[in-house]
Amino acid sequence: MTRIACAQIAPQLGAPDANSGVIVEQIRAAVTAGADVIVLPELATSGYMFDDADEARAHALPAATTSFANWIGAAGDAIVVGGFPEIGPDGLLYNSAVMLDATGVLGFYRKSHLWDREKLIFTPGAAVPQVLATRHGAIAVMICYDLEFPELTRPVALAGAELIAAPVNWPLFPRPEGEHPGEVINAMATARASKVAVACCDRTGVERGQPWTEGSVVVSPDGWVLDSVGSGAGIAIADVDLSVTHDKSLTAHVDLFGDRRPELY
Amino acid sequence: MTRIACAQIAPQLGAPDANSGVIVEQIRAAVTAGADVIVLPELATSGYMFDDADEARAHALPAATTSFANWIGAAGDAIVVGGFPEIGPDGLLYNSAVMLDATGVLGFYRKSHLWDREKLIFTPGAAVPQVLATRHGAIAVMICYDLEFPELTRPVALAGAELIAAPVNWPLFPRPEGEHPGEVINAMATARASKVAVACCDRTGVERGQPWTEGSVVVSPDGWVLDSVGSGAGIAIADVDLSVTHDKSLTAHVDLFGDRRPELY
Repeated sequence: MTRIACAQIAPQLGAPDANSGVIVEQIRAAVTAGADVIVLPELATSGYMFDDADEARAHALPAATTSFANWIGAAGDAIVVGGFPEIGPDGLLYNSAVMLDATGVLGFYRKSHLWDREKLIFTPGAAVPQVLATRHGAIAVMICYDLEFPELTRPVALAGAELIAAPVNWPLFPRPEGEHPGEVINAMATARASKVAVACCDRTGVERGQPWTEGSVVVSPDGWVLDSVGSGAGIAIADVDLSVTHDKSLTAHVDLFGDRRPELY
Repeated sequence: MTRIACAQIAPQLGAPDANSGVIVEQIRAAVTAGADVIVLPELATSGYMFDDADEARAHALPAATTSFANWIGAAGDAIVVGGFPEIGPDGLLYNSAVMLDATGVLGFYRKSHLWDREKLIFTPGAAVPQVLATRHGAIAVMICYDLEFPELTRPVALAGAELIAAPVNWPLFPRPEGEHPGEVINAMATARASKVAVACCDRTGVERGQPWTEGSVVVSPDGWVLDSVGSGAGIAIADVDLSVTHDKSLTAHVDLFGDRRPELY
């Protein structure tokens, strides 16, 4: 079993030190709770509601081990995934995520599908997510709006991802009473379609007037919500048997991948 | 507005005349209720739980206007979509659907993703669904398991489908208390991902020991269930403004199709 945790926090714009403190505290809390994989929100180090690229640039970090030394120090035996604004070697800004453990950085990913005003600030990533083999599973990282594109989620599952770990900042949209947020329904359908676990870590805390969905969830490979946070800060945490993702069959004659008809697509 | 109806009936194996009577009665009822588009279940003329190909062959119909004369006679001003076992000119069996109106047959579609034991009986269709322009909207027909493949649902939306009309027979799977059936969650996510309406017409009535999800739903282009039938026979019916599907934007800088990154896929 792999214990997966999503730490729904409230990053504060313009307060990188406070954010760093909260992040390290939450990584430690999740490690203490036995988490093997810990997901943090999108742009966790900086907050989200930048007025413009200059403001984002002021809080951007290089994609380097040194930027995450305190995360690495807190990781214990866990894999940690979280978002940050990246200043690239090319001087461009990216909405990025890091995957790391106690030994250092395992990988970076740049969001390839930018949402709304992010397009005025960031450059979209030029590569699809890699599936990284870690000691706690084969993990693909996506960021928020990326998840809404089956063109991205299906291929990473086909490439062997057992878990899609997604830092998100889901702006609040209205929904009918009693329904999961639309983004959660999409995460459930994504999991179900490819028998892959999906962990989405959302944020909380109204920022410059923007409320959030507070929709952090751990979704099982059969598409059901195992745990969620709901309103406010907290950790969604659940045990998932990622080995079930290796077998895409549902019955004797049903195989979610084998039943594809690539010659038609 | 387009009034979309899904008539959840209980086809009986080996009783084609009784099934035909129920189908015509339900088409008339939906027309009387003002339906513009009427969806019937998969294999509505025959029932589903064939023991083998011989039994299916005994109830199969040619894909011809004559097979659906009574449907055509009852269609009024509506477009009708429903499933039947097809005996092809090649002598092979297909799990097919017809789209028709009062003027005759508008199109046929052969299920391209066969579920479970269907593989022992039917030949999979060799073509993806067409998007048919009707006076009640641009409609793509899929059958049941087809819907679970984003490789199929995304392209029909990109090709201009306003509505995916899906005859289904969803065998009952367990689900957590309070959750929509997984198949409905998938339909909601499909609608949401591409801003397209989705109407799924399931069946009822235990057949040879097989219970059904009874999950008929009309899903709006923003991914919410507008109406459902629930347990037993009945009609899900809802008005949908299909013109909203022409504009894939959600905000000033978000466009569900424009935001795709085809150069990466």
